[in-house]
Amino acid sequence: MSAYLELESRFRRMALIGDAGSMLGWDRAAMMPEGGNGARSEVVATLRVLRHEMLTDTEVGDLMDEVGGDNRLDDWQRANLAEMRRWRLHATAVPADLVAAISRATSESEMVWRKARPASDLAMLMPHLKKVLELTREKARIKAAALGIPAYEALMDEYEPSGRTERIDAIFDDYAAFLPDFLERVLTRQASRPPPIRPPGPFPIDRQKALGEHLMKVIGFDFAHGRLDVSAHPFCGGVPDDVRITTRYSTDDFTQSLMGVLHETGHAMYERQLPERWRWQPVGEARGMSVHESQSLLIEMQVCRGPEFMAFAAPLMREAFGGSGPAWETDNLRRIYAQVGRSFIRVEADEVTYPAHVILRYRLEKRLIAGDLRLEEVPGAWSEELKRLLGIVPPDDRRGCLQDIHWPEGIFGYFPTYSLGAMTAAQLFDAAKRADASILPAIATGEFAPLMGWLKAHVHGQGSKLSTDELLTRATGRSLDPAVFKAHLTARYLS
Amino acid sequence: MSAYLELESRFRRMALIGDAGSMLGWDRAAMMPEGGNGARSEVVATLRVLRHEMLTDTEVGDLMDEVGGDNRLDDWQRANLAEMRRWRLHATAVPADLVAAISRATSESEMVWRKARPASDLAMLMPHLKKVLELTREKARIKAAALGIPAYEALMDEYEPSGRTERIDAIFDDYAAFLPDFLERVLTRQASRPPPIRPPGPFPIDRQKALGEHLMKVIGFDFAHGRLDVSAHPFCGGVPDDVRITTRYSTDDFTQSLMGVLHETGHAMYERQLPERWRWQPVGEARGMSVHESQSLLIEMQVCRGPEFMAFAAPLMREAFGGSGPAWETDNLRRIYAQVGRSFIRVEADEVTYPAHVILRYRLEKRLIAGDLRLEEVPGAWSEELKRLLGIVPPDDRRGCLQDIHWPEGIFGYFPTYSLGAMTAAQLFDAAKRADASILPAIATGEFAPLMGWLKAHVHGQGSKLSTDELLTRATGRSLDPAVFKAHLTARYLS
Repeated sequence: MSAYLELESRFRRMALIGDAGSMLGWDRAAMMPEGGNGARSEVVATLRVLRHEMLTDTEVGDLMDEVGGDNRLDDWQRANLAEMRRWRLHATAVPADLVAAISRATSESEMVWRKARPASDLAMLMPHLKKVLELTREKARIKAAALGIPAYEALMDEYEPSGRTERIDAIFDDYAAFLPDFLERVLTRQASRPPPIRPPGPFPIDRQKALGEHLMKVIGFDFAHGRLDVSAHPFCGGVPDDVRITTRYSTDDFTQSLMGVLHETGHAMYERQLPERWRWQPVGEARGMSVHESQSLLIEMQVCRGPEFMAFAAPLMREAFGGSGPAWETDNLRRIYAQVGRSFIRVEADEVTYPAHVILRYRLEKRLIAGDLRLEEVPGAWSEELKRLLGIVPPDDRRGCLQDIHWPEGIFGYFPTYSLGAMTAAQLFDAAKRADASILPAIATGEFAPLMGWLKAHVHGQGSKLSTDELLTRATGRSLDPAVFKAHLTARYLS
Repeated sequence: MSAYLELESRFRRMALIGDAGSMLGWDRAAMMPEGGNGARSEVVATLRVLRHEMLTDTEVGDLMDEVGGDNRLDDWQRANLAEMRRWRLHATAVPADLVAAISRATSESEMVWRKARPASDLAMLMPHLKKVLELTREKARIKAAALGIPAYEALMDEYEPSGRTERIDAIFDDYAAFLPDFLERVLTRQASRPPPIRPPGPFPIDRQKALGEHLMKVIGFDFAHGRLDVSAHPFCGGVPDDVRITTRYSTDDFTQSLMGVLHETGHAMYERQLPERWRWQPVGEARGMSVHESQSLLIEMQVCRGPEFMAFAAPLMREAFGGSGPAWETDNLRRIYAQVGRSFIRVEADEVTYPAHVILRYRLEKRLIAGDLRLEEVPGAWSEELKRLLGIVPPDDRRGCLQDIHWPEGIFGYFPTYSLGAMTAAQLFDAAKRADASILPAIATGEFAPLMGWLKAHVHGQGSKLSTDELLTRATGRSLDPAVFKAHLTARYLS
């Protein structure tokens, strides 16, 4: 046991260093004055290097060998050891000079992207993106050999361990086949009614914040263990015992920021309810990106845009802003949150069309990594896919392949987790409602304890003990099944 | 040179880890929700242990031996090496089990002190304080042997390197002799005029904050490299490129918080103007606590409570709060900031009586460390000293020896730096004004560049290159001379 316990002690230290970095990352986005950036980069890089050195230390490898398949380990410890090994494998697989080259190339390419996107200038970005892709393919080849899985899956493994393209292909193809006709029917039905009325602003930021905080508390967010602040790009950061979520406000429209807050609260509740016994151990961390996204989308899409929560929240919105009249009626507010439309921009898409944006990127990046698609061919392929999926063609690259930061940052294999998360959310919420009939009526009265109790037992409290597929199967009785998501959409938009 | 450069590289890493800890310390005081405290303690302790391990690593000692007195080092490098050796000496002198015992004893004793102080219950604290004192004396003995200086000076060396009791005794004895008669004259003169009128509140916090920020900018604080926030106990934290100062507001009185902000701005300017070339090296850090305190007191006491700055700032105060009438006249505001009185509480004392509180603690703690005074005798000795210095006797221990956190926290040898700082401030400001006749007229128009330029050249930009005494001698032409401080007080309070 002593080798295993020594590993726990070392990974605990790495996790605590990671927590320092995580908190400084939040500070950088939410608090830091711009002049602090240079010094902060040095601090964060130092912490990252330290952690990397500890993880790749040969003694860690020796300890892992020594533990072997120690039979005295219980389920959690075994899962912990497996996560430790996965972490180490990712850290040691890629030679240091390739890691450094990728780091340089992606930070340059990201910098150029920040200028190329507003200018819609793909040519400006192209040489940098090519370098990033080339290095990423090299990394993918090396990791694929180390992990014994295909190159694209080896990249995905960092975000979505054990994600398999065969399964994702099937799920996404199914949705791609379902979408065109479904979307047409949704839009026809939507067009048959007058559009919802936008509540007139301005909406003072302090009242938006107070309303957001109130609804966060309703969901179960404990402000003794977290904060709500402002940043340019909303996110959920911090650490499980001190979760920091952010949003941004517009005084013209409160609806988007508010829903963003509820989305991040979903992420936050996952972090908060991770197993305390396994704090600072790999197995105590969230399972992966699709499960994490499922938790934010379960709260945002499944719960908060649903009729029960809207019936509860609409009076609070009226009260917060002193609103009255048709724009503030519950049904109108609910319809604002259920508008569907064809759009070019992923992050502005509704839950019906969002998967189209993801499927497109997934298909393209898989081909890019495989070498079946050249970067020069991306704009054409983009238009073709979007035309097929949504029936529209982006007028320029700014609204096409230049819109996302992922590829310039060297992030390939992440996109599918958004839509896997959306589908997982539907399946989990469906199972939760079946398991506990009190969940939905409770939400209608602003009572989230039944839902959060179920999520803690079946998702949050499991940490990384189970694979994503095992987690979902135990919680819902089956592997990811897109039928549940489609049924949810049909019920919400066509019934 | 390679051994020296390897040391630089190692100390750079230690400094960057220290910076992470510093920023997390600010967050803890200014941002963190209370429930984050447990996890934060683990993170901060991990960073501290890491840094300690790096500093005490035998390889660092070997490198220092290898460098020896390398003649190729320039002045800055030599000073850097000397600081490295001093740091390491402090870190390695005390055995790990004594460090751990002190850490346990002080955190317990501090916890008990938080209850004992409001209850004025010295007996409750006594056993814990005894333990702390006993362990501190043990530490002092060990450090004294390692540093080759007396025990009390060895403790002081952590805060005030090369501080010597013989010199401090002389300076403090001189002030103790000067004070009783001087104070009597000041109070008699003060009593001959009606007391200043307090501007009537309430003073909205957002306007207090805006005024504070405006005056911070006037002094030279760059908000691209720092922030002003709120914490229970005002302090200056963060890192040189991102200085975080804090204050606390009362809506009944803006004057105290505002002056506190200016005080912390003095600390902040020191940090901001430390030599950039030596960032993350020991020699690039602030010289010591008396010099640091001299910078806050130079801004607060020498400059901001002076007539030139008050003439500039009073109209801004009127404007900020829409004030008019006698309470808002410049002379009245200036007099609010120049009230003198006998008080029991150190942190509420004015600049005339403050040294009495410090001298008392210095005399007592020196005897405690020497073993010439037992803790049971402290209340009696406290009353005796305060009677002699200020002519008053505290009615209870809450307003006597229980008021400060220092001793319960195991901090002995720190108190003298407050008043050495006040005297250093007077001497530096006096020299600055002599060197550059434009400094004072510029301040009267809200222009701090001449003063800040002089301070950067003579104090801030020197980092830890010189000893405190050398720094002051080069900047002002002589060692610390209490006559300058006394002349300042005489000019301000009796002319």
